[in-house]
Formats: sequence, structure tokens, C-alpha cells
Amino acid sequence: MIVAEQVSDVRRAVRDARHEGLSLGCVPTMGALHAGHMSLIDAARRECRHVAVTIFVNPTQFGPNEDFAKYPRTLETDLALCREAGVDLVFLPAVETLYPRLFATFVEVERLSQILEGACRPGHFRGVATIVLKLLNLLQPDLAYFGRKDFQQQLLVRKMCRDLDVPVEIRTCPTIREPDGLALSSRNRFLSPVDRQKALALSQALRMAERSLKEGQRDVVAVAAAMRRHLESTPEVTVDYATVANPETLEELTAPLAEMVALVAARVGSTRLIVNIPIQLESNS
Amino acid sequence: MIVAEQVSDVRRAVRDARHEGLSLGCVPTMGALHAGHMSLIDAARRECRHVAVTIFVNPTQFGPNEDFAKYPRTLETDLALCREAGVDLVFLPAVETLYPRLFATFVEVERLSQILEGACRPGHFRGVATIVLKLLNLLQPDLAYFGRKDFQQQLLVRKMCRDLDVPVEIRTCPTIREPDGLALSSRNRFLSPVDRQKALALSQALRMAERSLKEGQRDVVAVAAAMRRHLESTPEVTVDYATVANPETLEELTAPLAEMVALVAARVGSTRLIVNIPIQLESNS
Repeated sequence: MIVAEQVSDVRRAVRDARHEGLSLGCVPTMGALHAGHMSLIDAARRECRHVAVTIFVNPTQFGPNEDFAKYPRTLETDLALCREAGVDLVFLPAVETLYPRLFATFVEVERLSQILEGACRPGHFRGVATIVLKLLNLLQPDLAYFGRKDFQQQLLVRKMCRDLDVPVEIRTCPTIREPDGLALSSRNRFLSPVDRQKALALSQALRMAERSLKEGQRDVVAVAAAMRRHLESTPEVTVDYATVANPETLEELTAPLAEMVALVAARVGSTRLIVNIPIQLESNS
Repeated sequence: MIVAEQVSDVRRAVRDARHEGLSLGCVPTMGALHAGHMSLIDAARRECRHVAVTIFVNPTQFGPNEDFAKYPRTLETDLALCREAGVDLVFLPAVETLYPRLFATFVEVERLSQILEGACRPGHFRGVATIVLKLLNLLQPDLAYFGRKDFQQQLLVRKMCRDLDVPVEIRTCPTIREPDGLALSSRNRFLSPVDRQKALALSQALRMAERSLKEGQRDVVAVAAAMRRHLESTPEVTVDYATVANPETLEELTAPLAEMVALVAARVGSTRLIVNIPIQLESNS
């Protein structure tokens, strides 16, 4: 496994892999790897002959009052996990490597970057789009893997790649959950045992919405309101949004579609969590 | 010569060329080809085994009151010139091909896109950066060729490619001029014979600045003011800017540097022209 910190080393590794005619897969991460990330790496391994993982806590996607400084960093464990999973290349750049002095170019995906997570975290998706494009340009993968847990992020990355004609295929892999339903997230490690229990309200809210819609509830606004009520009834849970949306556009729905996504963002104590669930109705009657 | 209108045809042509191990050169143009463009194509031919020319009048770089509709379109002549010059691939997309419904992603190069041309044409460089990145992603060239005549544009493209790690090398080729000094531009064909004569004031102003600085004038603000006075003394010439700047940052200078660029933008009758000249001092004493 090559561990590269410099752009020139990555470029060389990519050129060598391309030269051997290998298919290239890329899994961009911010480290603090958990089973969710590992499922992306496994998916990449199955489809690609050469798998690159990037580990970079990207400052431009954090707001000034967000948790960039305290975002979990577990580099040694991450590298061991990558090695064990058969990763070929880990790209581990310094902040100054990707954002040198006078860096000034940003990618904006209009509308999609303004709503839901974008409304709660101004500038977040500009940072995401910019770093993902940079990493795709550096690693030039045939396939790139993102988790469905960050639903809006994978939609934004798909939209950016389509709009800018980036020659890559985006794969979205299922959310990985704990046995009790908690969606895996690097930020879960900040939850105290008590908060960990309260955090279950998020997945419960999603399941309630799914059940209600599958049972024929057609008032989608009421379903979203019920999710919010469930969350707000849990002490120390503060809701950012709770909604049922079109999974292509993230427009909030008032009437059901055959395919929907329920999305929730809430603070549990001081830890902000986001989760979602796809909802398919058998028929849209 | 392949003439491709569809993205899929371009992707196939690029893949085939790459497969044969050819070095790829790309010359993005808005058509209405003249000897300036042909010099870019010749430069590409000298360095690359496969040369692609794109012909696309890009709507996103024109303001609402600008000349998108009346920008010259001379497709048959352009194709004949490309064929004669040994171009391998011409990409000729429709507007809807590159900007489908719901297109929403744009590239912003901060600061550089706000000054000089950017100040005169709000949104212009956002459109330029976005279309150039799209074309580079579609054509995946090793080298891309731009004219020095559009000095700020080539600087912006370089900055964007560096910031976003686009795997391409940018070449900037010299301005081509008529024997009397007029810099070639597709918009020159809009000049009446009388305006054509008045347009010489632009290259004269640049030469004056060059001479003055080479003769030791150290008051760069006075040099810029003299350029402006010369232009304003010509009837029906309206100055947008006349300045001497740092050729890396386009910051306006007050004291000379070893390397400078003098830039002028002016309307001659109803035709807006931009020109520039590099100025090197033997020593910076």
C-alpha cells in the first residue's frame, strides 16, 4: 500500500496504475474510518483493480463555528484498516498541499447547495464540491464511492460531475447501521452513553415516517411534522430539519411519490447528526 | 477529421486517441477563426499527436446586454480551416448539449474574475471558467492552448487548473497582429473601415506605454494615464480601462517591475476591443 502525502506521488501512482490498464476506484473520506467507510472500500475492491482512499479533513466545508478542530482524527487506525482491506493507495495530504496560499477557485452547485444541510451550514457544500472535484482531478478514478448516509452530498457530487462533465461514475452505497438502528458516523464517538441512547430518536423518526407512508398516509406534511414531534419529545435533541423529499431534487413533498427520501438533522447534546431513509411505495395510488 | 456534436462521440474519439497512446492537444474557440486561432492550432500540431478544436459560442460568458446573438458565426469556413490545418477532431456542441435543463454548477475564481474585464463584464469569467473546465473534462487533453490576446482569460484558466488540480498543461501563445499593429480578434470584422483606423489607437497606446517604461519612466500611474489620454483623444473611442499591471496577479502597478503587462479595453463605435502587451525591462533599476 502506497501512502502518499504529496501531489506528485499521487500523480505518479495514478499514472502507473493507468499504465497497467487497471480500473481505478476512489473512496474520499475525512478519516475516522468506521464500517460505513469500509463498506465503500469493499465495494470499490469488488469493482476496481486499483483502489485509492483519501483521508483529508477538509477545512473549507466547515463553518467558522463548526467542529473542524475537534473532528476525530485516528490516522494510525485508519491506515491499518486500509492496509487490511487491500487498499492500494492512501492519499493523505496536508491542508497547505490542497489549499496553498492564494487558493481562490470554488465550485458552486446552485439550489442543491442552498437547501437542507446547505441552509443549516452556509458554504458547506461549496467546500464539499470543491474538494471532491480536486480529489477526482488528482486521482482520476473511473468510479468514486460515497455513502447514502450523506444523501444530499452524494446528490450534489452527482450533479456536479454531470454538469461539469467529469469523467467518473459515482456509486452510492447503503447506510450502515448499528444493530439498534443508529447510522454509523464518525461523529458518533462524541456521544455519551446517554446521548447515544437519545440519538436513536433519529432512526425511530425515520422508521415512523416509512411505516406511516407505506400504510397509505397521503399527507406527507403531517408525516414530516410527526417526525419533528418525535424528535422534539426527546430531551436535549434539537431539530434542524425533518422532511420527506423528492430523492432526485430534494424538494420537500406534500403528496407521496413512488420514491421518496425522509431526512432528519438534529443536535443530540452538542453532537450534530444527519440521517435519512429511502422510502419506496409499491404503487403510488 | 472527425466532427462531433454529441458528448458520446467526443468521449469515444478521445478514448480511441488515448488508447493509441497519442498526446492530446486542445484549442477551445468560439469559432470565427482567424490567424490567431490558427497559430494556436499550429502550436498544438507541433506538440501533440492528436489535436482537437472546440467551436462553441458560450452563452454563460456573455452578459444580458452583450453580443451573444450577433457574435460572428462562420462555421463552414471554420471547418475548412481546421481540415486544412490537420485538426483531428472538431467538437461542435449545441447549447443544450453543454447546458441541459437544470444545469446548475459554476466555477468561480475569486478576485481575478472581479477585476478589469471581470469588473466591466460581471459574470463573464464565471462563464469562461465553467465552460473551459467542462471542455477540459470532455476532451481530457494533455495540453490546452490559449491566446495571449485574452491575457486575463489565460491567467484565469491557469489559476483555475492549478487550484482545482486539473491534469492539463496550459500554453499561452503570442498575440497575432495585422501589419499595422491591430491585434486579431473575431470582433474586428464588425469594424467599419473608419473604425478600423480608429482602433489603431489601442495598439498605439500600448506601444507608447512600452516605450515610455523602457526609456526609464518610473511613474507607472502616469504611463497608464497617458494611455487613457491617447485613447480618449480619438473620437468615438470609449475607454473601459487602461492600466499597467503585474502579469501574475493583474494588480495595477504604481512602480515598475522587471515584467509587466499593459492592458487596454475600449469601445470603438459599438465594437468592444481588448488588447495587451508584455513589457520586460532589462533591469529593474
